[in-house]
Amino acid sequence: MTDTADFSDTRYNQLAEQLADAIRRGTLAPGSRLPSVRRSAQTWSVSINTVVAAYRRLEDRGFIEARPQSGFYVRAALPALHHQPQEQPQTPAAEPADEVLDLIDKVFASQIDPTYTNLSLACPQSNDFYPTGKLGRIMSSLLRRQPNLIGQYALPPGSPALRQQIARRALALGMILEPADITITHGCMEALQLALRVTTKPGDSVGLETPTYFYLLPMLASLGLKAVEIPTDPQTGLSLDVLEMLLTEKRLNAVIAMPTAQNPLGFTMPLAAKKRLARLMNDHQVPLIEDGLYAEIQFGATLSPAVKAFDRDGWILFCTSFTKTLAPDFRIGWVDGGRFADKLHKLKAVSSMAESALLSQTLTLFLESGGYDHHLRVLRRRYASQVEQARALIARHFPQGTRATQPAGGFVIWVDFPPGVDCVTLFRQLLKDKICMTPGQLYSPSGRYSNGLRLSCCYVFDTRYISAMIRIGERACEMCGLPPGLEATGTDYFPDK
Amino acid sequence: MTDTADFSDTRYNQLAEQLADAIRRGTLAPGSRLPSVRRSAQTWSVSINTVVAAYRRLEDRGFIEARPQSGFYVRAALPALHHQPQEQPQTPAAEPADEVLDLIDKVFASQIDPTYTNLSLACPQSNDFYPTGKLGRIMSSLLRRQPNLIGQYALPPGSPALRQQIARRALALGMILEPADITITHGCMEALQLALRVTTKPGDSVGLETPTYFYLLPMLASLGLKAVEIPTDPQTGLSLDVLEMLLTEKRLNAVIAMPTAQNPLGFTMPLAAKKRLARLMNDHQVPLIEDGLYAEIQFGATLSPAVKAFDRDGWILFCTSFTKTLAPDFRIGWVDGGRFADKLHKLKAVSSMAESALLSQTLTLFLESGGYDHHLRVLRRRYASQVEQARALIARHFPQGTRATQPAGGFVIWVDFPPGVDCVTLFRQLLKDKICMTPGQLYSPSGRYSNGLRLSCCYVFDTRYISAMIRIGERACEMCGLPPGLEATGTDYFPDK
Repeated sequence: MTDTADFSDTRYNQLAEQLADAIRRGTLAPGSRLPSVRRSAQTWSVSINTVVAAYRRLEDRGFIEARPQSGFYVRAALPALHHQPQEQPQTPAAEPADEVLDLIDKVFASQIDPTYTNLSLACPQSNDFYPTGKLGRIMSSLLRRQPNLIGQYALPPGSPALRQQIARRALALGMILEPADITITHGCMEALQLALRVTTKPGDSVGLETPTYFYLLPMLASLGLKAVEIPTDPQTGLSLDVLEMLLTEKRLNAVIAMPTAQNPLGFTMPLAAKKRLARLMNDHQVPLIEDGLYAEIQFGATLSPAVKAFDRDGWILFCTSFTKTLAPDFRIGWVDGGRFADKLHKLKAVSSMAESALLSQTLTLFLESGGYDHHLRVLRRRYASQVEQARALIARHFPQGTRATQPAGGFVIWVDFPPGVDCVTLFRQLLKDKICMTPGQLYSPSGRYSNGLRLSCCYVFDTRYISAMIRIGERACEMCGLPPGLEATGTDYFPDK
Repeated sequence: MTDTADFSDTRYNQLAEQLADAIRRGTLAPGSRLPSVRRSAQTWSVSINTVVAAYRRLEDRGFIEARPQSGFYVRAALPALHHQPQEQPQTPAAEPADEVLDLIDKVFASQIDPTYTNLSLACPQSNDFYPTGKLGRIMSSLLRRQPNLIGQYALPPGSPALRQQIARRALALGMILEPADITITHGCMEALQLALRVTTKPGDSVGLETPTYFYLLPMLASLGLKAVEIPTDPQTGLSLDVLEMLLTEKRLNAVIAMPTAQNPLGFTMPLAAKKRLARLMNDHQVPLIEDGLYAEIQFGATLSPAVKAFDRDGWILFCTSFTKTLAPDFRIGWVDGGRFADKLHKLKAVSSMAESALLSQTLTLFLESGGYDHHLRVLRRRYASQVEQARALIARHFPQGTRATQPAGGFVIWVDFPPGVDCVTLFRQLLKDKICMTPGQLYSPSGRYSNGLRLSCCYVFDTRYISAMIRIGERACEMCGLPPGLEATGTDYFPDK
């Protein structure tokens, strides 16, 4: 790591870290304006570019926010910042995958039951998050103009027009993709599943973040794959030093990671780390399955590029879907298979054939209409605001000593309770209150994070949601005997209704 | 096999076989009326029930047809009947699955290109085979009344209302199913794939029919499963004696078969064979994956029940879809997992989550409206007629010595050319004529059936289709040096336009 880019990366990272410390200590108070870029460059004797990069980094990490024509401001109301999820010693469950699935079953059951208040799944159940009206009108018009779409067979690897639109949009994340390398899939879930099957065989070892997307664990188990947890920093992501060691020792057959707006921790890896990750995988010729599900829901002013943008020899497979951003019910996802693209086309065909042309064309027409960018901007602002409000509630109502992430994107928050709060017990208690959240134990193959909790902020942020958050705090305070309100801010974060 | 049912089965089968011989020899000419049931019972000194069973069997096998208020008639224009596909000695390909997939790629490529005439895939590409208008109106109305369907997350194992409708309809095939055991899948393809994954592990051996559905072979390969071909009679299906031997020797971990309107041979197993198959699998506690894709497109007056109808201990998994009967583009299928139902629900969730609620509800409303039975009746008559017309063209234009199946349902015909016709060569020649059919080699893991050919009769039966059939005959006659027209019937089977 001696090239110029990495040197300057280190430089701006140092500056960003110093400023982050200042914010943590309160030297830079919530709501205060940061010095201008020009002035900071003079103050710290660095180039303007370095300051801009440092500010962007702080923005990505949720410490500051840009206000147009005004400058950068420290964001408000931080609960105790999160350094690393606390790992409680745990006896691994006999059949972790099955136990996880049983827990998820309970989560799903409550999801279907409208008497439950849901803070569990990362899926909004309200139409006002999505342009459902416009999509519905496009589809109705398609049904009138091309009634035989319903009567035709959809063929793999999916609609050419949609793949064209996907390649066009991928440019925003720095990826220059060939439509021919893109397979349309049944959501991001099938994209990940096919990407795993095309790059591994049963018995292989797959490196992953910890905590990780909970469905990955039973998915790996169902494919006969071993999960290898790689230490994951809640602000910078995968430990690349550990990853390099594992790759050098040839202990991994593939890696699966979510480098942008990770679920459940919300971090986005710094640019330099993304570049290094891409280089490592290509150098060691081990496939990286990049889960980009939330990559378009970043809170920063600019989008951090995908790791796939720095792919050299096609070892990176990029998976995502329109499920979280546009039309959950359509379940249209995609994967760029890199050097595995042909194999992936074929595996999709013999796994589930193809996706509906009616749904694909509806999405294509929406994307062509140009409404997507506007929609994404609204969605990002909305989620950023809801995450911030949820963090304020945590700060006020959860036990002292609670820590929480500050997501750079997406719509989930990870909470670490102080010792004494067991989240599986809390989960079961809250089910009695008709409240559902997801216990941390789900997020690791070894069942750690028994005091961890993922809260979804993608639901309508109404009185019912707020009452549920308060109730979670009460239950947790009872369990650990600590009072609530580590950092009562005095600011009222309740919405205006 | 000494119980009464099997004895009477043997009795009516003998009678059916004798009558079939009479039809083959021309003693009973095409178009002629069979003796009444009462008279036949007197003639052959058997019970009326035995005659009825024998006539039904002949009807299932396509020899005769019932005409309301009139009696049973010999169906017209049989090309030489098919006893068993000819197997040409073949060097197994190094990577059969990949070679098959490359051939299928060519088939798909021609499918997309409208300049090709397609007789290859078993998927109509015309809206007038399906109630697309009614489905479209239901969907448009749903979009207006419940716009937020698009914005909601579909959850596994699928729409309860649709599973209820499916269980209700399954009664027509003799199956009494619990909606709770049904998983909604992405077409029958995913149903089969999940059923295989839930019952086997890589390295296992799966028994199958030969010839079989061509996509099964790369599907098995993709799951690390070995294909074991079981001799298959083109009229009665799987050799149950061979199957019993393989099961007794514990050489099979699962069996996959299409006992009703099989693809590509078109047979329906006799009732007694279906019962014995169900008994064998339950006795040996080996899962049977029953592919029921064409079970609702049977040509006989009554529907032959599914093997699943005789399942005793849940060892039979029944897979099918609405793709061939109602809405190809929706790709909504289902599987009843029997004793594996819970595992199957979970595997679906971690493989591709769930199916669109919008599409599921559209199907549910259509099924509830009662339009499905009428639609199926029209579809069956249409396919029966098209299959008959295609057989007449084969009789007139294909080389002497050609044999063809007489399907009991579905919409494909299997043709065996006389020696000298290599169908992979024929396939390549016909691509130059912009005609696409599927060579027999695709249908066996050992690449047999090089002189076999599957023709799809699900396309619009217009001048272009007929010209393509004639061209196939010309090319085949050139290749083997034999004249066309084994059995010129003098009847004009061209449609009235």
